[in-house]
Amino acid sequence: MINTPDTICAVATAPGKGAVAIIRVSGSNAKQIVAGIFTPRSNNQDWHTQSHSLHYGTIHKNTELVDDVLVSVFTSPKSYTGEDSIEINCHASLFIQNQILQLLIEHGARLANPGEFTMRAYINGKLDLSQAEAVADLLASSSEASHKLAISQMKGGYAKELREVRQELLHFLSLLELELDFSEEEVEFADRQQLTDLAQKLSARIAQLLESFRLGTAIKQGIPVCIVGEPNVGKSSLLNALVNEDKAIVSEIPGTTRDVIEDTVVISGTTFRFMDTAGIRNTSDTIERLGIDRTFEKVRNAATVLLLIDVTSPLHHIKHNIQSIKKHIQNSTRVILVVNKIDLITQAQLEERFYNSFAPQLESQDAIVYISAKQGLHIQELIDVLVADAQQSDISQNDAILSNARHYEAFLHAKESIDNVLHGIENGLTHDLISLELRQALHYIGSITGAITNDEMLGHIFANFCIGK
Amino acid sequence: MINTPDTICAVATAPGKGAVAIIRVSGSNAKQIVAGIFTPRSNNQDWHTQSHSLHYGTIHKNTELVDDVLVSVFTSPKSYTGEDSIEINCHASLFIQNQILQLLIEHGARLANPGEFTMRAYINGKLDLSQAEAVADLLASSSEASHKLAISQMKGGYAKELREVRQELLHFLSLLELELDFSEEEVEFADRQQLTDLAQKLSARIAQLLESFRLGTAIKQGIPVCIVGEPNVGKSSLLNALVNEDKAIVSEIPGTTRDVIEDTVVISGTTFRFMDTAGIRNTSDTIERLGIDRTFEKVRNAATVLLLIDVTSPLHHIKHNIQSIKKHIQNSTRVILVVNKIDLITQAQLEERFYNSFAPQLESQDAIVYISAKQGLHIQELIDVLVADAQQSDISQNDAILSNARHYEAFLHAKESIDNVLHGIENGLTHDLISLELRQALHYIGSITGAITNDEMLGHIFANFCIGK
Repeated sequence: MINTPDTICAVATAPGKGAVAIIRVSGSNAKQIVAGIFTPRSNNQDWHTQSHSLHYGTIHKNTELVDDVLVSVFTSPKSYTGEDSIEINCHASLFIQNQILQLLIEHGARLANPGEFTMRAYINGKLDLSQAEAVADLLASSSEASHKLAISQMKGGYAKELREVRQELLHFLSLLELELDFSEEEVEFADRQQLTDLAQKLSARIAQLLESFRLGTAIKQGIPVCIVGEPNVGKSSLLNALVNEDKAIVSEIPGTTRDVIEDTVVISGTTFRFMDTAGIRNTSDTIERLGIDRTFEKVRNAATVLLLIDVTSPLHHIKHNIQSIKKHIQNSTRVILVVNKIDLITQAQLEERFYNSFAPQLESQDAIVYISAKQGLHIQELIDVLVADAQQSDISQNDAILSNARHYEAFLHAKESIDNVLHGIENGLTHDLISLELRQALHYIGSITGAITNDEMLGHIFANFCIGK
Repeated sequence: MINTPDTICAVATAPGKGAVAIIRVSGSNAKQIVAGIFTPRSNNQDWHTQSHSLHYGTIHKNTELVDDVLVSVFTSPKSYTGEDSIEINCHASLFIQNQILQLLIEHGARLANPGEFTMRAYINGKLDLSQAEAVADLLASSSEASHKLAISQMKGGYAKELREVRQELLHFLSLLELELDFSEEEVEFADRQQLTDLAQKLSARIAQLLESFRLGTAIKQGIPVCIVGEPNVGKSSLLNALVNEDKAIVSEIPGTTRDVIEDTVVISGTTFRFMDTAGIRNTSDTIERLGIDRTFEKVRNAATVLLLIDVTSPLHHIKHNIQSIKKHIQNSTRVILVVNKIDLITQAQLEERFYNSFAPQLESQDAIVYISAKQGLHIQELIDVLVADAQQSDISQNDAILSNARHYEAFLHAKESIDNVLHGIENGLTHDLISLELRQALHYIGSITGAITNDEMLGHIFANFCIGK
């Protein structure tokens, strides 16, 4: 267990140009420390006795006025951390914030580590570990979908379900261990069929959660959409057209390789991560080179591939091109054929060559959209297809979605152990081996909600928080 | 007067990575609007009746949870603006902040303009105009000196003094205008001697404040220190050495011309603006070209000039060089001769050439420091001289310092009118002309504290604030 008798302080608001900043103080001496630097205008010396009260006053350093401030009082356990806490709202000058932090430190507080307020909330039982992790996700949420995901996890997510399953497993474990004590009498306290049923149910449920991790990651980081095609079919123009669509919020992410340009766009509440695989550009057999290219990995991991076609190319070339690219796309990946440059041919030509001849030969699961990236024609149509795809896997239709890599790993291990338990029962293994696997499964499940933790793990989780949270 | 029946809202904290953000709501409907979106966990429907109380709860959009928030209640007139105000502390995700702002707007609030909260505080008599302006200075303060200056102005500064003087002047004005009513009787209600005394005292006081403007500007923007010297004497090395001194906080300001590099450094609580006049570099008669150079202006406006000398140059050359540069430096400017590159000669040479021969011939008011910018030798000594100079003009020794350009202009005009009043009395001008000048003076003095304002002026002042303040 981590030791928390000391009082911590930190700026909780973002640095930069603002009107107000908040300095948080939490710990058993919070009230006493702030009382040493704060003078309420009411001159009431008992200002800190009532929880959830606000006090206007001044902070002085020796006799010099540092700032007019507003102080909020939270009495344990009715605070974020569960400890006595004070929040000081001051003017947002960095100089003032530093002066106040300095004064707090001089009066006995110490600077908080990243995430230390939330860690204390966890230690004091205000949040379980997966909820604490959701707080970080909530702070980082930039789209409706990622916000919804974080809120759902913060409100409990699959944690409650896990706690219940864990209780049942613990019950079986205790029965199995009882059998160990009576091993000479060959009794079976733990009903093998009930245990099998529970383990099967749990294994299936975990498989479902593991399955949702791809969606969870897509929601948090954006649904990966890969734009592929031959050189000069207009990949960059399409990326620009998608990114420049009005209602979009854009942030450029530096590509992981020089060959892939990424842009994150929020459309209709969903984050898309568009990747322009500019790597496929040099030789005529570039498609064959995909396999050795990092681009290939992007295509494999994409949820959707926009396969871009130049409407002016010969049809047989287009067909060959589609075939060679498709070799590198997984079957489960959604493919949208995007026929570009329709501004360069007449409507009659388009109908004759594509509507009547080309499109009917396509595999039925593929969508086809006709656009002009340069002229911005029908871009909205393409976006509508993307959004409709995304909404099919909407969170509201999935009760719990896995989005945390740490949880993913724990669930992977847990499933392995559970499957070993099932295997053990099936093959009549001794109860000590089964109970060992059961212990393993309990360990991994417990590590998700924090029922089982160690300091190193906690340190790692909270180090990713910002200071002040 | 500006109309303020509507309720405004804005994010008051800086955007960016933080734990908590504050959304401010102020206006007659603030409580009602927030009550429409906030559900306190206590389920107490009267949560907003008690001023200075804090309430934990949730904000929902339709049925979807947007965030867990903490709501602060301020009842008019006990708030920053003087109106009913609510502050909502939410998680610092931009998405959440935008959602809450949207909800507030849907429920009848509107987005605040920059500085609108402070403008309302001014309109409701919580601050006078010069205090409101000090709030912006306080938010921007980055050093101990600029912070002290802003605090002193926010606490009243010269505003109280101005209000008293204005009352006295108003008294005389009313007497003068009374004389106008009785002009046929040739009576003098206003004692000319008393008026002269007051006007003289006021004129002298304003002259003093105008005088302090240079210091005030230096405190706010940094004390301007100009580094001049021939090419290759080590100006850039010196700038780097000064800027890289440990305890310094550095921010690079893009030079106003390509020829002047500026660096702002906070040393011992004072901001220095070091300017490397790289412009003096091309020809042998560069010093003569100073006059046509923008560099010249920098040298003229500098509080201190660091005149850099290469210790290895011939002494006669150095003396000639100093003379030609000094022609362009005002007498009131502090000059520090900085003898550079002392690492290139022996201590014996230094003593012989400089300590014994050169230094004694210098003008007594100039300081001299021997350094090696490249080796970092005696840089601290130079800094000590600069800091000592700065502390001579410390604020604590000056009761009021003018730092606001708008006030400076108003005081200039006011002094002109006051001097005209004095001139008028002296030359026996008619009371209508004197009273006209007195009215002018009152107008300008009143415009500083906001006793006299117009919408355009207010708009201009508050437009420089950030939104949320």
